[in-house]
Amino acid sequence: MELIFLGTSSAIPTNHRNHSAIAMKSFGEIMLFDCGEGTQRQMSRARLSPMKVDKIFITHFHGDHFLGVPGMVQSMAFRGRKEPLHIFGPEGLSKIVEKIKGLGYFSMSFEICVHEIPDGTPEGYDGSVDRSIEDDRSIKADETELNEKEGLNEGLFHEIKILEEEDYIVTCCKVEHSVPNLAYCITEKRAPKFIKEKALKLGVKPGPDFGKLQQGIPVKVGNRIIKPHEVLGSERQGRKIVYSGDTRPCDQMIKFAEDATVLIHESTFDSQNENKAYETGHSTAAKAAEIANKANVKKLIVTHISTRYKETSTLEKEAIDIFENSVLAEDLMSIEVERSDS
Amino acid sequence: MELIFLGTSSAIPTNHRNHSAIAMKSFGEIMLFDCGEGTQRQMSRARLSPMKVDKIFITHFHGDHFLGVPGMVQSMAFRGRKEPLHIFGPEGLSKIVEKIKGLGYFSMSFEICVHEIPDGTPEGYDGSVDRSIEDDRSIKADETELNEKEGLNEGLFHEIKILEEEDYIVTCCKVEHSVPNLAYCITEKRAPKFIKEKALKLGVKPGPDFGKLQQGIPVKVGNRIIKPHEVLGSERQGRKIVYSGDTRPCDQMIKFAEDATVLIHESTFDSQNENKAYETGHSTAAKAAEIANKANVKKLIVTHISTRYKETSTLEKEAIDIFENSVLAEDLMSIEVERSDS
Repeated sequence: MELIFLGTSSAIPTNHRNHSAIAMKSFGEIMLFDCGEGTQRQMSRARLSPMKVDKIFITHFHGDHFLGVPGMVQSMAFRGRKEPLHIFGPEGLSKIVEKIKGLGYFSMSFEICVHEIPDGTPEGYDGSVDRSIEDDRSIKADETELNEKEGLNEGLFHEIKILEEEDYIVTCCKVEHSVPNLAYCITEKRAPKFIKEKALKLGVKPGPDFGKLQQGIPVKVGNRIIKPHEVLGSERQGRKIVYSGDTRPCDQMIKFAEDATVLIHESTFDSQNENKAYETGHSTAAKAAEIANKANVKKLIVTHISTRYKETSTLEKEAIDIFENSVLAEDLMSIEVERSDS
Repeated sequence: MELIFLGTSSAIPTNHRNHSAIAMKSFGEIMLFDCGEGTQRQMSRARLSPMKVDKIFITHFHGDHFLGVPGMVQSMAFRGRKEPLHIFGPEGLSKIVEKIKGLGYFSMSFEICVHEIPDGTPEGYDGSVDRSIEDDRSIKADETELNEKEGLNEGLFHEIKILEEEDYIVTCCKVEHSVPNLAYCITEKRAPKFIKEKALKLGVKPGPDFGKLQQGIPVKVGNRIIKPHEVLGSERQGRKIVYSGDTRPCDQMIKFAEDATVLIHESTFDSQNENKAYETGHSTAAKAAEIANKANVKKLIVTHISTRYKETSTLEKEAIDIFENSVLAEDLMSIEVERSDS
């Protein structure tokens, strides 16, 4: 599993940082998280083909997070794409996609499947809602310092499953920005470990029966049915990647990112600009690191860096001082995400 | 006067070439000709501020020529721009600008003035039409080889004045692409040379009266009125820059580019792909050079290079073989345009 940071700037692009976009290369496909202007060119630089993108997850409708979609769609059509493209995003997505389809002359050669996640309670989501949690635990006494400023959503945490594939699940959660913003979480599904020794002891012969048991299918040995649980170890945690989009530090994010392998959290400002960050619905590197700490994640990557920082080492240091395994993202940086117990 | 090539690719961007856009730095402002996706970032690389752009001229509504407008507009608004932005383009511009205004959340802090040039006869243009030429000279016996293929517009040439400022005039002309495409021409206004010796001989004293005569205002010397024509030389040609947008080679282009200081002509393909160029409404480098020759321009710059050409020296050579003063544009290339008789 590889994460490629295609754009790491906030609002305005710089010579070294393009608008927000993250590619995740895994499960035989490329998923995009946000798609700011110029993302198709950044993909070319990263040697990733936009034709292999089947799913784009947009966090919110500020231009720096989605204005790369029109060009990406038109380039796909120019190349004769036939496969549908799935776009996920907050309320308003359908109208925006309609406008995008009307931007100039091009022959649409494929279908855009719009998955609009409505604002408000997840029950409103069209049939795909699987799990919603109104969780009082998301406000804990020792976490209230994050809530000390007025206006934070006091712990109404909803995690909504928006997609389930063979190998992974995607959920989202509303966090706190100046406009509706969804954080996304991709959780890998992992089968329990197959314990060869147990299988051999029960008389299972190496070959197709091993495969069946690994896949959860019982097999017959002599007159006895061997059930998968007899040869499989305990449940194993798959990799979990969480991306915040734009948000103030908030309790929902702590809950949503719990035990993540990688948390990608916005970090527009440094600590000197904490008030400005709060007012504009953004986070500082230090606050992102506090979230990482409290959520017990393994690695933090801070991104969405304000153009005011020509030199970003201070920003990175502010994160590391609070959460050691922190990295500040650079454009075209690639991170290999390993399983922790593989 | 400086021309900066911000994007020189066709359709799809590459690592080295962005989508179409040309900045013209002159007359105390920056004008943009086309504005493909990522133009605001290319401007940052070229150290040009989008805030200094007051006029954008769009040739046609294929995404690679205008999908940088939404991001540019939103960045201008983010920075609190107050000055109006003028956008010129073919029929359909108003609807496209409406869609662009609806792309996501942003506070519009300035006015977009839409100048839509309708398809068809220039008389349809809203009051600003100054000159229209239905000119039989645009088909000449020795130019018919350009017309040998079926479907070329047989010489109906309309040059429409769309803007007149103190220092320059902008005209446009419909050329031949798969969708309506306007070529643009910027002609510098130049006052005739002031001949100091003549003025002194007529008794005019150096000082404010020199200035008045230079500006075309008569002055009184004793009892005699000295008229400007008595001290001014003959008419002088200002610099003339012509940009084709996307087009097949066509007679209208020859007429429109007549005696230009610089002709910027698209050159998507090489001569081996001449048929493909024709079918898709594009030109080869050789055909662009033929146009330059026939139009008697001083310099030709070919741009809008297909992604198939990793190595472009052949393309440039094909142009130079026909028109010596040809250059193939590269991204961020800057050309200083001097007056020929300064």
